[in-house]
Amino acid sequence: MHADIGNALDGALGLDRAALDDVDDRVASAHERVERGRADGAHGYAALNLPETCDPDPVERVAAGFDPESLFTVGIGGSALGAATITDALDSPVDAYYLDNVDPEWVSALCDRVDLSETVVNVVSRSGTTAETLSNFLVVREAMDDAGVDWTERTVVTTGAEGNLRSLADRHDLPALDVPDGVPGRFSALSPVGLFAAAVSGHDIEALLAGGAAEAEKLSGSLYDSPAYAYGATSYALAERGAAVDAMMPYAESLERFAEWFAQLWAESLGKDGRGQTPARALGATDQHSQLQLYRAGPADKLVTLVRPTERSDTPIPETDLEGLSYLGGSSLGELLDAEFRATEASLAAAGRENVRLEVDRVDERGLGELLYAMEAACVLYGELADVSTFTQPAVEWGKKAARGLLGGGEFAEADAVRDKRRLEID
Amino acid sequence: MHADIGNALDGALGLDRAALDDVDDRVASAHERVERGRADGAHGYAALNLPETCDPDPVERVAAGFDPESLFTVGIGGSALGAATITDALDSPVDAYYLDNVDPEWVSALCDRVDLSETVVNVVSRSGTTAETLSNFLVVREAMDDAGVDWTERTVVTTGAEGNLRSLADRHDLPALDVPDGVPGRFSALSPVGLFAAAVSGHDIEALLAGGAAEAEKLSGSLYDSPAYAYGATSYALAERGAAVDAMMPYAESLERFAEWFAQLWAESLGKDGRGQTPARALGATDQHSQLQLYRAGPADKLVTLVRPTERSDTPIPETDLEGLSYLGGSSLGELLDAEFRATEASLAAAGRENVRLEVDRVDERGLGELLYAMEAACVLYGELADVSTFTQPAVEWGKKAARGLLGGGEFAEADAVRDKRRLEID
Repeated sequence: MHADIGNALDGALGLDRAALDDVDDRVASAHERVERGRADGAHGYAALNLPETCDPDPVERVAAGFDPESLFTVGIGGSALGAATITDALDSPVDAYYLDNVDPEWVSALCDRVDLSETVVNVVSRSGTTAETLSNFLVVREAMDDAGVDWTERTVVTTGAEGNLRSLADRHDLPALDVPDGVPGRFSALSPVGLFAAAVSGHDIEALLAGGAAEAEKLSGSLYDSPAYAYGATSYALAERGAAVDAMMPYAESLERFAEWFAQLWAESLGKDGRGQTPARALGATDQHSQLQLYRAGPADKLVTLVRPTERSDTPIPETDLEGLSYLGGSSLGELLDAEFRATEASLAAAGRENVRLEVDRVDERGLGELLYAMEAACVLYGELADVSTFTQPAVEWGKKAARGLLGGGEFAEADAVRDKRRLEID
Repeated sequence: MHADIGNALDGALGLDRAALDDVDDRVASAHERVERGRADGAHGYAALNLPETCDPDPVERVAAGFDPESLFTVGIGGSALGAATITDALDSPVDAYYLDNVDPEWVSALCDRVDLSETVVNVVSRSGTTAETLSNFLVVREAMDDAGVDWTERTVVTTGAEGNLRSLADRHDLPALDVPDGVPGRFSALSPVGLFAAAVSGHDIEALLAGGAAEAEKLSGSLYDSPAYAYGATSYALAERGAAVDAMMPYAESLERFAEWFAQLWAESLGKDGRGQTPARALGATDQHSQLQLYRAGPADKLVTLVRPTERSDTPIPETDLEGLSYLGGSSLGELLDAEFRATEASLAAAGRENVRLEVDRVDERGLGELLYAMEAACVLYGELADVSTFTQPAVEWGKKAARGLLGGGEFAEADAVRDKRRLEID
């Protein structure tokens, strides 16, 4: 990955080179803590070892047992978004679906529409108790039964060393992959959690890991030596100066889901103790006609992160006699998109709005591995600099208990609070 | 639409009933300005007249001329998002695609994949000069030529009274629909711009208009009489107290695109003069596993808007002997989703994080019409209260000129600024 942070300096938020150098002094000690955590395989930090510790062989072996038309990944949050980012970005004859919501109309329509006899189901939950995932799995399993499909022949389990799903796999002799220890879901894209979908879709998972490893090798005690740390440190420094929002805006349809993956990584890792940047998802060039007005002329409370591949196949724009449009003819969609990328970047800079450019050579396995790993390392560094507990997500427990209580899964005070909702209704 | 703003009061941002009553005093005069604008058909305000001024007949007549397998809507921003919100939300045998980006790989893959002889193309641009839209149209038209399809038989034009596309329609005798005067693109969902895609997909556009009209009838001089104004006034009052972000979180897969439409409406209308809430898109229940940690434990700078239909068809969860999950068996995906909705709402409230509940009876034409109109009216009211120029988007012009200059479409100083980009590169 390549980072250009020139437009993050001397904008409305006042980050200058001297202040960034001060942050860089702290990057050295933060990097030492990261390296110590990696060496110890400590919770969370272990994620940054994945390119070397993840063995692609079992993933490839299980994937080789199938030649499906469709793949259902049944998982939610980090159990779905890494895989979805990869398979959405790359072409494949396999249709990959992500059952990451419990919307009844949507799930049942999907089961009706897809040929389940040509579908592989990968059910992903470390604990084996995630309510949404297990509910969806039960529904899909029944739909397979109803369709006369032997679900035990078409189900792969990705889970922790123990629990419901591990027992299920043992009982029915299902292929099982391991959710790695010490790796929170949102950091698990470059593990079997993210890689099985890629492998069964025919993608080169070793190139994904190699992309991650290449970024890992660049990590050092200075933000000026690693694009990942450059991004993490710059985001942190801008957030401290008021960049409450990080608008992630890739210029490639294939990276739309990457922005969603990033939003989870950033929100769940850094959003605690009353702090944390809010990720906003955008897509270039489309959202120039939607969000750019706000980014350029709204509050100076944002970092806009512009991402693009430097190479892509192109499509020429036919010549035209339409009035005022002759300048487009003979050009190409790629040139237009590139001009819009650079124009948006400059437009923000001219208004003093901080932005960063991130580039990979291509949206392929290697480039995705670089992007995913670099954003994870950036997030870990930001967490060190901000002194937050990057690898936990304690605030979601309250709602889980409340929902479980409402469904009769036990007595929870939180469920009573739901029933006491304060109302002010307008019809 | 039904609004419940109870959880917007007495949270971390300190909006109380007395302060909301003070805002309500200003709603009366704001409503007078809105009504005057509507009566005059003034720019922008005219959008709120659409349910009565939009004639569905020409839209239905043009749509009745086709029975396609696929629909390409070639447009960007407001020329695509309203239509996309409707067709994404409702089932149809017609596959609706939105060519709202100039990504060359994506556009050419789409033209290769879809049977163009069974496709209707609707090219949408008020001016007829939008670079992205016209470029994509030229590419699609050539792809039709190459496939031996007569594009003049399968193209509908939606445009203003004059310009390139109007001339094109006249020259080739293409069916043409009108982009209404005085209605900015982001407010045009309930006009031919949004309704043609709905009609050709087989949806009831009169019910869409009726849903809008029902919300229009509720507008009055008090926020306590109209759910649309209740939402707009509450958002404004919270923004004034520090709610820099409005997180739009529908609990329905079918409303994912609605959140994107809302994000344009809010960002482009209200993001000016250094002010404006930043819309963040989320989806329930999925993003409980992604964004909720931040919303509950991050900065108290958000309004979370929870949207749901009160009725939907349901899917039972099969009984299970999986350990600890028996409480799910005999329940349903709908009950689980409902419990999660209420649990998230209460979880935010318990942490003092402001949230609002918006409900429609069903995600159908009527419900969508209500939602779309109500959000537009909410936005107009917010703009009046904040005293911003709701219906303009001046900040996007700089980048348009720069891009045009880069592509050789004239001399623009903005293009020179692009070439002078400041760099600080890390590899």
